[in-house]
Amino acid sequence: MSTMSEFELPFPFPVVSYRDGEVVLIDQTRLPQELVWRRCSDVPTLCRAIVELAVRGAPAIGVAAAYGLVLAWERAATVAPDPAAALAIFRRDRAALAGTRPTAVNLFWALERVGGLCERLAVAGEPLAQVAAALRAEADAVLDEDLRTCRQLSLHGAALLPDTAVVLTHCNAGGLATGGYGTALGVVFAAAAQGKQVRVYADETRPLLQGARLTAWELQSQSIEVTVICDSAAATVLRNGSVDAVITGADRVAANGDTANKIGTYPLAVLADRHQVPFYIAAPSSTYDPDIASGAEIVIEERDPEEVRTYGDYRAVAPRVTAFNPAFDITPAALITAHITEFGVLRPPFTSSLGPVLEASRLARGGLA
Amino acid sequence: MSTMSEFELPFPFPVVSYRDGEVVLIDQTRLPQELVWRRCSDVPTLCRAIVELAVRGAPAIGVAAAYGLVLAWERAATVAPDPAAALAIFRRDRAALAGTRPTAVNLFWALERVGGLCERLAVAGEPLAQVAAALRAEADAVLDEDLRTCRQLSLHGAALLPDTAVVLTHCNAGGLATGGYGTALGVVFAAAAQGKQVRVYADETRPLLQGARLTAWELQSQSIEVTVICDSAAATVLRNGSVDAVITGADRVAANGDTANKIGTYPLAVLADRHQVPFYIAAPSSTYDPDIASGAEIVIEERDPEEVRTYGDYRAVAPRVTAFNPAFDITPAALITAHITEFGVLRPPFTSSLGPVLEASRLARGGLA
Repeated sequence: MSTMSEFELPFPFPVVSYRDGEVVLIDQTRLPQELVWRRCSDVPTLCRAIVELAVRGAPAIGVAAAYGLVLAWERAATVAPDPAAALAIFRRDRAALAGTRPTAVNLFWALERVGGLCERLAVAGEPLAQVAAALRAEADAVLDEDLRTCRQLSLHGAALLPDTAVVLTHCNAGGLATGGYGTALGVVFAAAAQGKQVRVYADETRPLLQGARLTAWELQSQSIEVTVICDSAAATVLRNGSVDAVITGADRVAANGDTANKIGTYPLAVLADRHQVPFYIAAPSSTYDPDIASGAEIVIEERDPEEVRTYGDYRAVAPRVTAFNPAFDITPAALITAHITEFGVLRPPFTSSLGPVLEASRLARGGLA
Repeated sequence: MSTMSEFELPFPFPVVSYRDGEVVLIDQTRLPQELVWRRCSDVPTLCRAIVELAVRGAPAIGVAAAYGLVLAWERAATVAPDPAAALAIFRRDRAALAGTRPTAVNLFWALERVGGLCERLAVAGEPLAQVAAALRAEADAVLDEDLRTCRQLSLHGAALLPDTAVVLTHCNAGGLATGGYGTALGVVFAAAAQGKQVRVYADETRPLLQGARLTAWELQSQSIEVTVICDSAAATVLRNGSVDAVITGADRVAANGDTANKIGTYPLAVLADRHQVPFYIAAPSSTYDPDIASGAEIVIEERDPEEVRTYGDYRAVAPRVTAFNPAFDITPAALITAHITEFGVLRPPFTSSLGPVLEASRLARGGLA
């Protein structure tokens, strides 16, 4: 455990890693109060970490799940008399991981990819140790590809920013949400690495405060100037002419460019439009869903109203009062200046410009079958 | 002290009253956790209550200050040998009240009105007890006029709502902010009293949560259905077509209709405009400032960034991270459907329709000189 005053973290952040038979996570529930590493030496412990949001952000969960299967196989190999018995234990752990977060697409993607490899090798009679080595290499590849994809899209995005830039962002689309590099914040990190002077306004992002807790922390850890604002003060900084670009991540993008993201993204896009500030979505192709024609088809998850009634340990609302807690909103494509992806900066009309991204996403999904 | 489960309060709320030589306040810092009455038997205790926001909202502070002067005189009369000595003690207490909240216009208005009467009567040699009775009557008049004005504007506003209506509001412009009836929430109470079915969405209103803590509590206490939402979810309920009218209070209105109100009001007006939902300001004429031509002249107070870094007892943001905390924003007149005042529902062009309101405000201010 480190205290909050120690911000000397390597970059990309070691959000998820595998060391000495343990999956090691930055415990995001404890930030920014303290930087604590959560060590998971078996799959049930890792499942608990995912459920409790110690690791969150779809790409980061995918990486954690990939290493979780490495863990699963290594544990199985030490207790099972033969590969078939090991595979039975492995499958039980894989099912447990699949049951942690039902909506994070990358979780299932990673379980199919690494789990499928394990099945093929085990059924082919490969020695236990060789299967273990192959799974480890595959999980490393999942992490490496995430880092590479985020770096690519971030470099494309960085080119959009002037030499002195102020970026407004919402929620946490940073290293902590991914393998360590980030999407919206990846753009900021890439621009800073190029010597650009980038300052960030971070919406605190009620109800779960990912902006206040995580975005502020990770920018400060990289010595990037950040100012936290209440979500409803974003309109004021946009109106003041203080902002050069709004950049957020995405939870899911429809084929027409409509984007589901954290609640509060849509009003930000409306205000950016009103004040003629460009509004960008930064996301890897895996976030683009070719099977969904428009945002109207995206079901918005409603979460526990208790998240609205409380803030950390503090209760603001009388217990019997109703609260409404939609977790996401939909930003229509017409309000999005461009989508920043590993394929480049894609501008309207999105129905044609998003083509390669949707195709890449379709191929990756097809590969899972 | 009452617990939160006891919501049987009379309406209008006894926000501020005078009983048996004490100014009695609902302690708004303790809501909604508990309903506690703060009894102030001397002026320093009342000053502390105002500074600590136990009583807040400009009209409510004005009423508290008026009764504070009654208290001041009664205490002075018991210890002073003659009216001149009593007046000296009284003036010291009046100065202390004036030093509590520098920006609340109604505070100074009430101190001039009740304090000026005291000066005139004392200098004219009236007996101590008769001065006391006159001050008590004047303070009662301040409260009665506030209640009457709020009721008038609320009846005008209620006529705007359909028989089944959903109102979205921000911050607390309710009974707790006034003598007990409210402005934006007064409209809701008046409509409900007329038998209309009114439901309310209350923005929680970060950073100080007046919506979550106070608006939800006072609506629930009157059995009006209320749903608390995070400020950034207001866009979703507006877009869903769930809202018939947005109504907020105001901190100051310029002669052209531009309105300063709690941070987060301006983005609400932009979103109401986008989704063709009427946006109303409800405020008494005393809130209209004839000396200010437009919102550009209104200076926006920046408050302690610590309010943004924290929420109740919970700290979300690392201590060294900067936060920006503008307390108000300006909603341009062009986004306001109408101003609801005791003179009626005033629609654009505001430069002519606000005339009687500005004149009433000018006369009241002139009367203070």
